[in-house]
Amino acid sequence: MSKIYVTGLGPGASDQMTVQAKKVLEKCPVIIGYTVYIDLIREEFPDKIFLSTPMRREVDRCRMAFEEAGKGQDVAMVCSGDAGIYGMAGLIFEIGKEYPEVGVEIVPGITAASGGAAVLGAPLMHDFAVISLSDLLTPWEKIEKRIRAAAEADFVICIYNPSSKKRADYLKKACGMILEYRKPETVCGMVRNIGRDGESYEILSLERLQDAQTDMFTTVFIGNSDTMVINGRMVTPRGYRDV
Amino acid sequence: MSKIYVTGLGPGASDQMTVQAKKVLEKCPVIIGYTVYIDLIREEFPDKIFLSTPMRREVDRCRMAFEEAGKGQDVAMVCSGDAGIYGMAGLIFEIGKEYPEVGVEIVPGITAASGGAAVLGAPLMHDFAVISLSDLLTPWEKIEKRIRAAAEADFVICIYNPSSKKRADYLKKACGMILEYRKPETVCGMVRNIGRDGESYEILSLERLQDAQTDMFTTVFIGNSDTMVINGRMVTPRGYRDV
Repeated sequence: MSKIYVTGLGPGASDQMTVQAKKVLEKCPVIIGYTVYIDLIREEFPDKIFLSTPMRREVDRCRMAFEEAGKGQDVAMVCSGDAGIYGMAGLIFEIGKEYPEVGVEIVPGITAASGGAAVLGAPLMHDFAVISLSDLLTPWEKIEKRIRAAAEADFVICIYNPSSKKRADYLKKACGMILEYRKPETVCGMVRNIGRDGESYEILSLERLQDAQTDMFTTVFIGNSDTMVINGRMVTPRGYRDV
Repeated sequence: MSKIYVTGLGPGASDQMTVQAKKVLEKCPVIIGYTVYIDLIREEFPDKIFLSTPMRREVDRCRMAFEEAGKGQDVAMVCSGDAGIYGMAGLIFEIGKEYPEVGVEIVPGITAASGGAAVLGAPLMHDFAVISLSDLLTPWEKIEKRIRAAAEADFVICIYNPSSKKRADYLKKACGMILEYRKPETVCGMVRNIGRDGESYEILSLERLQDAQTDMFTTVFIGNSDTMVINGRMVTPRGYRDV
């Protein structure tokens, strides 16, 4: 039986890929993904059949994967980061109901929360919440409820999709809500282009984060009440008693 | 300047390691870690100096890393999963204040949330909270507040350290709290020994999860109100409108 391997490339799609992901890409004759990610791996795997659809055509891309696998060949469906975190894994299972003869395996990757945390220092040493500010598929009221709950319970908060052209003020709105529960000097961080050319990061207060410029390649971290800056890095202490 | 590379091995410490992590281990003459993790990589890197301390001696292990790096050689400090998620990264920065001449770099790995999700299906397609039930370093009241907040705001919840000998009933207590906000038939999953020999998983209702047997190698996932079972896998739909 041929299989679809839904494969996370990690943030940078090169060294941050797992050994397992690399082996999957070597094995599968067909690689399917959004154009931007395909372009990141095309040179490394020159002998493959690369197929793509434009952004927002996720359903078509999944169907394409099942059609190709139906021809009896293994298919790698690639995503940035982890295919299992806001990635294509869920949709593949949903559409897979129509293709019971094709197997599905998820190959995990480094998600932006892990990759971004490593750039900033160690912000995720304690309980954390991951929230996407994209309201394309989720009502804003639900996002707002989650932001408030995470802020009140003192989770470190990792924000995916902090803004886009249509949602320029969403991060500011989120920070405003969090400021009802946390101090303005709460340590925050943002990382842009994790693992790629032009990777950059900034550590700043929650108050200043409100007016920070972000885009769809930025991941934002809001510290908990214990998060501190040590030698220019963002660190949430775990609380080992004997330090 | 010599450096400490705080390196996540991923759940299974072999194919789920990143290419970058592998290169770091190849490069560093000294590898330090908890005995269990050292044993997982000893064969693959036979020419290294391996150093270790028993469990709970994390501070000693960090100091050992700085002492070795102080001798002018690069050191890999290895952890299971992601060094940046409940790992050693934070403590290394804290202790690093005393060793300003040694550089620190964090090399991310696949954490149990990513690795376990891939085994179960696609539970983390939407906002999620990661909570450790270990109250060794955190007051139980804080953990309880976080469980309640995450349950009420309909986060998918990923639980690390669900139980140990001393905390046999903690998962049951956590489920009891979550049942105040979620239906008994809420789809849940648990994964044991992710990426290692004896890997196993089970998908079950929140009501049944209350009485499930777990140990320190188990990661637990509690679905949100939309999470469903598709062909025996745990899937949280993202909500793509055009499906």
